This record gives sequence, structure tokens and C-alpha cells, in this order.
Amino acid sequence: MKAAILEQVNKPLQIKNIKFNTLKRGQVLVELAYSGVCHSQLMEARGKRGEDKWLPHLLGHEGTGIVKEIGEGVTKVNVGDKVILGWIKGEGIDANTAQYTSHNQIINSGKVTTFSEFSVVSENRVVKLPANIPMDVGVLFGCAILTGAGILINEIKPKEKSTIAIFGLGGIGLSGLMATKLFNLNNVIAIDIEDDKLKLAKEFGATHTINSLKEDVIAKINELTNFNGVDYSMESSGIASVIETAFKVVKKGGGLCVFASHPKNGDMIKLDPYDLICGKQIKGSWGGSSKPDKDIPEFAKLYKEGQLPLEKLLDKKYKLDEINQALDDLENRKVTRPLIVINESLK
Amino acid sequence: MKAAILEQVNKPLQIKNIKFNTLKRGQVLVELAYSGVCHSQLMEARGKRGEDKWLPHLLGHEGTGIVKEIGEGVTKVNVGDKVILGWIKGEGIDANTAQYTSHNQIINSGKVTTFSEFSVVSENRVVKLPANIPMDVGVLFGCAILTGAGILINEIKPKEKSTIAIFGLGGIGLSGLMATKLFNLNNVIAIDIEDDKLKLAKEFGATHTINSLKEDVIAKINELTNFNGVDYSMESSGIASVIETAFKVVKKGGGLCVFASHPKNGDMIKLDPYDLICGKQIKGSWGGSSKPDKDIPEFAKLYKEGQLPLEKLLDKKYKLDEINQALDDLENRKVTRPLIVINESLK
Repeated sequence: MKAAILEQVNKPLQIKNIKFNTLKRGQVLVELAYSGVCHSQLMEARGKRGEDKWLPHLLGHEGTGIVKEIGEGVTKVNVGDKVILGWIKGEGIDANTAQYTSHNQIINSGKVTTFSEFSVVSENRVVKLPANIPMDVGVLFGCAILTGAGILINEIKPKEKSTIAIFGLGGIGLSGLMATKLFNLNNVIAIDIEDDKLKLAKEFGATHTINSLKEDVIAKINELTNFNGVDYSMESSGIASVIETAFKVVKKGGGLCVFASHPKNGDMIKLDPYDLICGKQIKGSWGGSSKPDKDIPEFAKLYKEGQLPLEKLLDKKYKLDEINQALDDLENRKVTRPLIVINESLK
Repeated sequence: MKAAILEQVNKPLQIKNIKFNTLKRGQVLVELAYSGVCHSQLMEARGKRGEDKWLPHLLGHEGTGIVKEIGEGVTKVNVGDKVILGWIKGEGIDANTAQYTSHNQIINSGKVTTFSEFSVVSENRVVKLPANIPMDVGVLFGCAILTGAGILINEIKPKEKSTIAIFGLGGIGLSGLMATKLFNLNNVIAIDIEDDKLKLAKEFGATHTINSLKEDVIAKINELTNFNGVDYSMESSGIASVIETAFKVVKKGGGLCVFASHPKNGDMIKLDPYDLICGKQIKGSWGGSSKPDKDIPEFAKLYKEGQLPLEKLLDKKYKLDEINQALDDLENRKVTRPLIVINESLK
């Protein structure tokens, strides 16, 4: 079966035929329909996560597919089930990582990978696809929606009539933005450097947008909040200085900044300690504190009710062979959330 | 009456005779018995809080004394009451700041100042001295104990059998250290650069001490915690890099660093965002989140039961005329918490 392999960081992934071993306890074999491409996978491919000890290895941490085989002990899914694959740990066995080979060379892998035709996944990284969720939209439940909407719903829990600023309108930022509609907020300020995304942000409920290449974000937010700052900020740009800005704009005495972005290895964020003494809070998010088994069905319900128009995040499709193009386009901000179509006949 | 005036930053305070105006609504006139000297007051006198727009002005934010007169609306205390003066806002009227003059020059002041024979204080900055608390020990209830023990009791709330590292053994650090005895902790690691303070820390319940001039703090804490890090750290050294260390040593997935120290204006702290994503938490403390009217009686009870041996923090006494010596000694780490004896006949 075909898989995209990271053999050297900062080089194109190599599409090769690889084999997988017999399933071990807690492992699930999935035939993949779709995979997403997240910014954090791009960072890994580009060598921005520090030394990579696992080369060559597989990548991809969000996808959908159909279960073809289950290993010993697996009870959460059955052969034939449609499933979502994601990186956030859920219920079930935490199985060993899968082993693959290509021409007798070992190809390393994680608990979940998705840039391949088939994948051997740990039971706790799969969740049944809820009924009436299309396979392509389902991909977003593996990472973007859990993290983005999770930050809003599980972590920030915004108070009524409060004000939020959302920095970085990728899959996570836009998922968070959609989720603001579930709360009765006064101002929702969306910040990015692409006018197209800011336009989409308006559709998703942003009351104000700021193109940070064209306007001074802090001055604009000061103007919009009468120099008090926002109640909350959410950040997912992947840039350390943007986390700093997102922290600067929250108000003293309880303002909360939650960031999902994981800037390149070694990039530090600089904060004024006095801001923390004055009650500004900053938190990093690990997958929106989501519990996939509980949150995926709930977010799916919101999607089906039309409250989370996730299909709008699927702007551009690529074949597995075109995965390097997808990575380049994501890097060059030509696409919000690349969708890799692996086998669209799986429905 | 005599008062110590900051006329120029980074110059000795000037002891001069000053006059105060008739009391306004919500003001309380106190004859002072004792004042403490906190590191943050030292920072202000040394010009490390940025531009000082209020020169010349009074200083001092913790003390004890006797109420001589009350302004309109004051109900919290009566003439003759022994009181604690402190900077943390409590119940009662938030009165205007007092006005003083010296030879017709206006001397600015805050809601509370204590480096003087008398002081005009806002009602919400005084609390009655609990019974059987000596006037000298009472001074510590104005700042150090509320902040230090407050961080432990109100903010960290350590779990049983957990591990804490306390950085910086001034009045706040040592007050926090004493409060660890109220919890059944496994390891209490005290860090400072003075062996004398580390010895005192042992008396107060530290299970391990580290002199950070002689040992590598991070390596030692790694060794003590099997490379997991501590559950909590508390920091009050006044140095940005120490806050960074205090954050580095807490464990991933819930480790919490609370710092009270307010480094010099403009000093930033640098954090690895990935540490925050992995669930390390950092918070700045505003006076240990204490509510003086509720917490002072409770901490006084613990003192009287012998659980907070606060008298041990009063290591060196100075007259009001010697206040510059007290500031120098604090700066040069020759004293933990200088006590200014203003009028010890007040009992």
C-alpha cells in the first residue's frame, strides 16, 4: 500500500509502497478515505520540532476511513465501522505503535498516522464516525474542531456579553470562531493576514476583522475595547510573537489568553510578569482539553443542527500523490485546511 | 510629625516634618507603632518601577498603630483601636489619597503609607489587630503573611503528598514556607543564595535546601523528583530569571508556578510555549488573593496556635531615622524583613 514517508526533514515526503505487520493487541487496521493536513504536521515535516529521532517515519494525525481488521482486545469498533482517526487520546487500549517496512527498511510510526492508504492505529485514537457525517467533513473531528471548538467550549467557556479576539484563521482558529456563535458574545474580533480568511470569519460570526499586515492590532483592539482589552483571546497562528500579542490584548483582572499554536522548537514567548500579577492569565491548549469519545458526538450534533458549518473549512482537495503540494500550499497560506483524498469510493 | 519622603528616586529618603489635612470621608488617622519594609518598596525607592510621576511622595505599605481619629463614614474602626495597615484592599470606604505638605510643598501619598509617625489611611486599608498579636508581629499581616501564606492557602492549595519548591526566602517566601506545614507535603525544597536563610528554611519545614550560587537548581530538583519536576513552585525573589526557573521546574500536566515577585520595570520573562501546551501553568499573585478582613483573623489564629512562627521573621530593627540603612540592608540581603520601630511605647 502507498504511504507518504518523511525520510529527511525539510525534503518532500516520499510516496512509497510499504507493508504492515500482523495486528498486535489494541491495534485497528483502517482503510483511509481522507486525511487532513494540520500546521503541526507541516512543522514536523519542515524540521521545526527540533531533532527528529524517528526518521524515516509516517505522518498525518487526522483522518477518516473504514475498519478492516481489529487486533486482540479491541472492543470499541468493529470491522466495517466508519471511523475518525485523531491524535487526541480517547478511550480504549493505548496500543504499541505500528511497524511498517519498505524493502526491508523499518518505517517508524506513531499511535496514529493518516498519510497512507491503510493505517494501523491504536484503539484509543479512533472514534466511530457519528451517523450522517460525511467522510470528508469527519476528518475535521480528528483535530481542528476538537481543538478549536474545544478551546471555546471546554477551556474558555466565555461569559455572556463578553469579548473575544481570535488570532490566526487556520482550521483551529476558524473552528473556534464558529463556536463563538454558541455563546451570546458582544464582540468577536478576528485577526489574520489574509483578506479571504477575514471574509470567511465574517460569515462565521466575527463582528470585527483586522488584517494585521495593514493595521496595528493592539491599537485597533484598544479602540474597540475602550483601552480595557478583551475578556478572552484565542491564538493558533503558530508564531510566538502572535501569542505575545494575544496575551497583551486581554484585560487586567481576569483576562484569559488560550493558545493552541506550537511555534517552532526553541521559539520562546516573552511576557511582562506584571501583567500576570495584575491577573492576566495565559494557558496553552492540548487539543482543546477535548475528550474525543464524548466531544465528537456533541460537536457532530451541533454540525448537523447547522451550528458549526464545518464543510466551509474544506476549501481545497489533493490526491495522496500531491501531498507535497498540499504541504507547500499550507505553508504559503494558499489553503486553510488541505484535504487529502485517499479513497473517495469509501462512503 | 516626622516622615521619610522619597524626593528623588535612587537617593536616600529625606526625613522631614510634614503636616496632614483635616480627615476626609473614609479616612483614618493612625499613630504608627511599627512599619515593615517590603522589597517592592525598595524597588520603588530605587526607581525600578519605571517613571515616578508622584515625586515627592511617601512610602511604606505595611504597619501597625493606634487609631487617633476617624473621618466621616468610617465604621470599621474606632478611635483607640489597634490596627494593621496594609496595601491589599479590604472592606470599607476606598477613600481619596491623603494630602500632606512640608513647608507648603505638596507631598503626595497613596491609600496607605507607613514610613511616618502618623498616617492618614483609607478605611479599606486598615484591619483591627486581632487580640493577643504583638504590635511588631502584626506588621507582617499587612503584606508578607497575606501574600506568602496566601499564595499557599488561597492560590496553590497543595494536594497531600505533593512536592513544592520555594524560590527566594524573603518575608514572602518564608511566610509561604511556614504555611507548607499546614499541608501534608512530601518534599518542600527551599532555594536562596544565603545559607543563613536556608538554615531558617529548615526550621520552617523545608525538607531540602539549595543554595543556587553553589548548586545547579534545575539539576538538583530533577534529581529530587526523578526528572518529573515538582507539583508546585512559589517564587518571590524579585528576579525575572528566577521566575523562569521556577516555571521550568514544575511538572508537565498540571504543575503550577505562582510568583509574587515583581521584577524591575521592563524585565520580561521568557517561557517555552510548549511547556504551557503540555499543561504547565503559571500565575502571578496579587497579594496571595487575600481578603484581609477574612484572612488576617484566620492567619492570626494559626500564629497563636504556634503554626506560623512569624516572630522569627523579625530579625533586625531600625529607627525611623535609620530607614535608609534598612533599605540598604534589604538591598544587600543583610536582613530578611526590616522592622522600623516608630513608637514602641504604643502597645
